[in-house]
Amino acid sequence: MLTTASIGIAGTIAAGRASADTLADVPPREPGADLSAFSARSKYVRIGRIPEAGPGRRNVDPSDAINSKTPLDKLVGTITPSDLHYERSHSGVPDLDPAKHRLLMHGMVQKPLVFSVDDLKAMPSVSRTVFLECTGNGWENWKKADENLTVQNTHGLVSTNEWTGVPLKFVLDLVGKEKESTWMLAEGGDAAGVARSIPLTDEIMEEAILAYGQNGEPLRPAHGFPIRLIMPGFEGNLNIKWLRRLKFGDQPWMTRWETARYTQLLADGKAKQFQLRMETNSVITSPSGTMEIRPGYNRITGLAWSGHGKIAKVQVSTDGAKTWAEAQLNYPILAKAQTRFQMDWVWDGQPTKIVSRSTDEKGNVQPDRVSFIAQMGTNALFHYNAQQTWSIDAAGRVRNVLA
Amino acid sequence: MLTTASIGIAGTIAAGRASADTLADVPPREPGADLSAFSARSKYVRIGRIPEAGPGRRNVDPSDAINSKTPLDKLVGTITPSDLHYERSHSGVPDLDPAKHRLLMHGMVQKPLVFSVDDLKAMPSVSRTVFLECTGNGWENWKKADENLTVQNTHGLVSTNEWTGVPLKFVLDLVGKEKESTWMLAEGGDAAGVARSIPLTDEIMEEAILAYGQNGEPLRPAHGFPIRLIMPGFEGNLNIKWLRRLKFGDQPWMTRWETARYTQLLADGKAKQFQLRMETNSVITSPSGTMEIRPGYNRITGLAWSGHGKIAKVQVSTDGAKTWAEAQLNYPILAKAQTRFQMDWVWDGQPTKIVSRSTDEKGNVQPDRVSFIAQMGTNALFHYNAQQTWSIDAAGRVRNVLA
Repeated sequence: MLTTASIGIAGTIAAGRASADTLADVPPREPGADLSAFSARSKYVRIGRIPEAGPGRRNVDPSDAINSKTPLDKLVGTITPSDLHYERSHSGVPDLDPAKHRLLMHGMVQKPLVFSVDDLKAMPSVSRTVFLECTGNGWENWKKADENLTVQNTHGLVSTNEWTGVPLKFVLDLVGKEKESTWMLAEGGDAAGVARSIPLTDEIMEEAILAYGQNGEPLRPAHGFPIRLIMPGFEGNLNIKWLRRLKFGDQPWMTRWETARYTQLLADGKAKQFQLRMETNSVITSPSGTMEIRPGYNRITGLAWSGHGKIAKVQVSTDGAKTWAEAQLNYPILAKAQTRFQMDWVWDGQPTKIVSRSTDEKGNVQPDRVSFIAQMGTNALFHYNAQQTWSIDAAGRVRNVLA
Repeated sequence: MLTTASIGIAGTIAAGRASADTLADVPPREPGADLSAFSARSKYVRIGRIPEAGPGRRNVDPSDAINSKTPLDKLVGTITPSDLHYERSHSGVPDLDPAKHRLLMHGMVQKPLVFSVDDLKAMPSVSRTVFLECTGNGWENWKKADENLTVQNTHGLVSTNEWTGVPLKFVLDLVGKEKESTWMLAEGGDAAGVARSIPLTDEIMEEAILAYGQNGEPLRPAHGFPIRLIMPGFEGNLNIKWLRRLKFGDQPWMTRWETARYTQLLADGKAKQFQLRMETNSVITSPSGTMEIRPGYNRITGLAWSGHGKIAKVQVSTDGAKTWAEAQLNYPILAKAQTRFQMDWVWDGQPTKIVSRSTDEKGNVQPDRVSFIAQMGTNALFHYNAQQTWSIDAAGRVRNVLA
């Protein structure tokens, strides 16, 4: 047990000492509603994917939204509820008929095949809990920091679900991928026809999944129903939703999604293509932007993740990155999944800054913002993984700042 | 990869060989709906917790229901979506105001305390993925087998969620549990006031959680919002919902929930009390009751779980328990959580019976029905963990049978 915490928290318990050995201190028992086909959320729980700037003020009109963000500030544990998984679509959300949907596998293969959804569901399956992250996650802080942003605004384009489906490798065996096939084109069934060229490395052939299940149930339309590609550790855009086609070849197709879009404009004006892996990252989710804290014991908690594998270590600074302490990592620590960290902290009431820094099992360390910008410049839009700093003023107000 | 499966499935792919290197075989792309605050389920997905007997025929009126069951036949992976977690309540579902709710800890402790929900949320947390199972799960098959039951009917009172909250041990330190306190009374805030005496073994003090989170979000009212007790491996009834009180003492309280209810009537007419741990169990979820299969390749899959720890092995028989083969266990295998198993099978079209048998890491083997009934008799109602047999007739119809 965390002894610091037991000492710290003993003085902050709001409800306090019980009056006597009676039930005078707790509200009376309540009768309840009938059971039902689905357990709805409590009427007291206010949670949703449309970001809010400041209490109750939405900063995006849903009809204008090009993405919707996971409310990391209101979630606990590591799983993201399916209906709160972040969403980024280029042509809205189609609700495809699974009885009619097909997946074509063709190109440099010995036996081109078409699969129905039932064909795929009859095959051996795997389940894997992994994060998905939009490559644009964090872009709000590339050039400046709006102090009114919440962690949902700054980091809400990452979520973790248990995905279930057929290992890519299994269907590669069925169609007989030719040895010269080193690239795969994955295309979605939405009107935008998002299509990406994916290099067939050993890692990708071993880990990619043609998923039909999400957190135990069928995929939801916003997340690719009836089939999506899951590419553990790689940018969200590669995890093609509404998957209709996998074509095999010996070079990338240079689709507009990897030439005009999703390339990285570097400081020297050159564009970097196929920067596919998501780097080691972390963020403190509480206390975080627009929250207010009180002096005394506060628990710091957040999430860390890396496209390279498991999180090895998360360090937290409560003095603006001058000194660091190692946070506790919650079990289980899964490769390419979000890991929850936490640390006890007694705040002395003085203005300060808090920040987290993750290290993954391959030794990659999340960069500070100054080093990150020095390397990447400010033209880029994607793969922002600099450390996130929250400032705390004398009144306990937590705000988004650059460092 | 499962070579048997690749060979078996190659002949059963419904959609079949692609016509040419074109998109003639897949439906056109579709425009989509706007993004939204929540991702709804597909209109094509029919899923719910009210059991159905036969296609479309509900066998329980929701207003008469005393429990609602997880549709294990329609789920994949291991996580149960929060709104489909099984439900068993004795006085309906209250939606308690978390701002007013309190937890009293008193009795044989040095410092009786009352906690608000915010107090608990400020404490160090743990997350753990575990199964919960109603002790009555499986009772339908004690005396006879209705052949029209689905696996949702026979085994739908077990689910697996990621639960997040405060370790019991942490609050025990805060109130200063006295050494003589060997029992804990946990009481719920629903009108029925379900209350159970729990022995404070090392295992329970180490593993029990005061949970406020479920699959990443706040508990849902049907599952105990704002606080419930999580007792990994022990009968569902001990996982007290709407938790309002923990009282400590040196003997059990003998509440009506452990005297008149939730005792086990044995073959000799004696009643067994405090049979708290859920035993090793498993069930094939596909193919399962009321499904229909075709000759040729079929994937057998199901779930196994044990209150003793991890699942070590699941064996499957496709010839009515004459011979057994070891099924593949899907990663990760977590202690006291459901583990997914699967096995390739080529059905020759002859009538047969399929059955699964789990073994846990402590060496406990799920009993066959004859041995189980010989030991327990047919007076009992709880802790049914006999092997589940599904019969398959010449037409491929899958039916619930005793063995």
